[in-house]
Amino acid sequence: MPVSPLAPPGGFPGLGEVAGVTLAAHAAAIRYPDRMDMMLAAFASGTTAAGVFTRSRTAAAPVLVCREHLPNPGPRALVVNAGVANAFTGRRTGLKHCRVVCAAVADALACEPGQVFPASTGVIGEPLPIERIVKSIPHLVRAQHGRGWLDAAQSIMTTDTFPKGASARAEIDGVEVVLNGIAKGSGMIEPDMATMLAFCFTDAAIPRDILQQALVQGASTTFNAITVDGDTSTSDTLMLFATGAAGNRRPRSLDDPVLDAFRRALTGLLGDLAVQVVRDGEGASKLVEVRITGARDDAAARAIAASIANSPLVKTAIAGEDANWGRIVMAVGKAGQEIDPDRLEIVIGGVQITRDGERIGSYDESIVSQHLKQKEVRIDVDVGVGPGAFTMWTCDLTHGYITINADYRS
Amino acid sequence: MPVSPLAPPGGFPGLGEVAGVTLAAHAAAIRYPDRMDMMLAAFASGTTAAGVFTRSRTAAAPVLVCREHLPNPGPRALVVNAGVANAFTGRRTGLKHCRVVCAAVADALACEPGQVFPASTGVIGEPLPIERIVKSIPHLVRAQHGRGWLDAAQSIMTTDTFPKGASARAEIDGVEVVLNGIAKGSGMIEPDMATMLAFCFTDAAIPRDILQQALVQGASTTFNAITVDGDTSTSDTLMLFATGAAGNRRPRSLDDPVLDAFRRALTGLLGDLAVQVVRDGEGASKLVEVRITGARDDAAARAIAASIANSPLVKTAIAGEDANWGRIVMAVGKAGQEIDPDRLEIVIGGVQITRDGERIGSYDESIVSQHLKQKEVRIDVDVGVGPGAFTMWTCDLTHGYITINADYRS
Repeated sequence: MPVSPLAPPGGFPGLGEVAGVTLAAHAAAIRYPDRMDMMLAAFASGTTAAGVFTRSRTAAAPVLVCREHLPNPGPRALVVNAGVANAFTGRRTGLKHCRVVCAAVADALACEPGQVFPASTGVIGEPLPIERIVKSIPHLVRAQHGRGWLDAAQSIMTTDTFPKGASARAEIDGVEVVLNGIAKGSGMIEPDMATMLAFCFTDAAIPRDILQQALVQGASTTFNAITVDGDTSTSDTLMLFATGAAGNRRPRSLDDPVLDAFRRALTGLLGDLAVQVVRDGEGASKLVEVRITGARDDAAARAIAASIANSPLVKTAIAGEDANWGRIVMAVGKAGQEIDPDRLEIVIGGVQITRDGERIGSYDESIVSQHLKQKEVRIDVDVGVGPGAFTMWTCDLTHGYITINADYRS
Repeated sequence: MPVSPLAPPGGFPGLGEVAGVTLAAHAAAIRYPDRMDMMLAAFASGTTAAGVFTRSRTAAAPVLVCREHLPNPGPRALVVNAGVANAFTGRRTGLKHCRVVCAAVADALACEPGQVFPASTGVIGEPLPIERIVKSIPHLVRAQHGRGWLDAAQSIMTTDTFPKGASARAEIDGVEVVLNGIAKGSGMIEPDMATMLAFCFTDAAIPRDILQQALVQGASTTFNAITVDGDTSTSDTLMLFATGAAGNRRPRSLDDPVLDAFRRALTGLLGDLAVQVVRDGEGASKLVEVRITGARDDAAARAIAASIANSPLVKTAIAGEDANWGRIVMAVGKAGQEIDPDRLEIVIGGVQITRDGERIGSYDESIVSQHLKQKEVRIDVDVGVGPGAFTMWTCDLTHGYITINADYRS
């Protein structure tokens, strides 16, 4: 599979160690031979964890188990496989397999199964090849080291064309902490919750409740602001593990000023990973930023942004580099939110196209057409009724998407 | 453009006269030369009208004018153009053009502008070529006759690959009445309201309020149960004109038993036209019927059906003739409705795939794969919690859709 034309030119970033985290990847032949398809991350004692999961009513078994384990003290491991999602595998089989995996990891690391977090991605409806997975765990435990980020990022890929990683730093009360993250896409990406798999790790010391609040808040404008095709996976998982090894003073609340820089760094990290997922959207040839202003409130702005970002007609027009801004009017209209059609302003690539509800007389389509030939497209829409704003990222809808998805399982 | 492989093999049906209705079509060079792109239907005095329109917040000027004219007594004409939608043309320009067109038709037919219903379809954001349209009206008035159905159906086409028409008959209190209808698609088709343009005509005598109720009810399981791409047009219009020329006893209410056969015939007519629109969905190679049962109520069933019918991943799997039923699980889950994952049953082409929340042991994918090679695909899903049911029609998502929509305006 060719690498997406939107892949970051510099490749995977050089990620340093996060004190208290070791990683390993392994080729377990879960679906295909000779590729890394399992990863393990192990955590020092005293680690806290936060998680945001799919809202799907058919959530996969690993999501159910992660939710169940999240309140337990002292997370010790994350174990992930690609190839088979362990979703819709029946309450008996799917959950049983999850528990077998957690128990095997707990055995090898001398902890409790409830301190292990499982995640799976891949085909829905097929049972995990549980023997091969369990057999791989001793290999993973032996192979762990502090710099296995690229291997880990590669091992969780499915239709991704490049591995995704990001890093950030911040100070908490004078102590420097590091944040690393890896993620995978790249279909079934929808903005109504965390999307796909993303795992972040920091050596900061942050109590569990505060960590959870910070993650939820950070996800709201990053992983919950991207869409590839509007489909929501049964397995969407975003987790953040904080080992505490940096030894900073623990913040007392989410609003504790010592946490400000960390929260900014976390949002930056999540945003970096989320946009990488969109850049690798199935068949994507262009990254599209949709910025709504002037809505009744931020929620209304988000609904309008999502309507544009998920519209097949808008996305195919961008794929065709066609300045067909009428389709944006359509998508604004169908969102069902309060707008003022007589004040609707549409701007593409910085060029204002409409004013007072109609096309500007001097509008020059050729400038917009030039902008649409770029790899990054920006759409600004002001709907003219209030202070609400929201920005969303999506990609175009191309023949590549059809090719990948009409032929994915074969 | 090739005709859709799903076009009815018999072609356009032979539609007879509807007493009190005359039609004409004309080539007005609105967007392309040498093709019919305007139609006029004129009605006998005593006609009643009903209409269902787009819920878009950026509804086109003709929709606003139709809504305004609907309460007026004695509709006398319907005037439609293809090529330019007169949508988002500014409150001044767009509405003014509509009123000019209505006035010109009213002049020619010696009626009031408020008795004329305008409709437009085509590109959004460009003003109507109002001189060419007004100049065409005398030609249209001169050319009217009682059997111009095929010409009328052809004149309203845009990206449609075949003209759409249907007919039905019923008795009201012993008097036979006829119903004819024409429609056009074929992108921006979404189930949340009537879709595209559809015009139906009957010689039945039915008071306006009852006609409106009958149309709304008939649309709910037909035009509001189809989707091509989930996008909602700014111009969606479904109208029904009843001339009264058949001379039947006028029903006293929607529930008047004399109206039963008419209501069944109307729902049949609307369903016939609606499915024709899906068959001509942009790029469609398969017609897909999605039937949900076991939901909390019919509205929940409709939301689940729409989630499946609009899912790009489900639609591309069908295009690829891939029995990837896990994507149906995903689409059920993301609908956000109450379901019982442990009782979810998925049936494709009559073959049961899942029971009690997992794949049936004896499931034979090759039989489902055979079904998916057909031009008509049926998906049945029971979500296991209640009596709610709804059936929706959609088409697959193919390279053809991308080709048409990445290049539509050029």
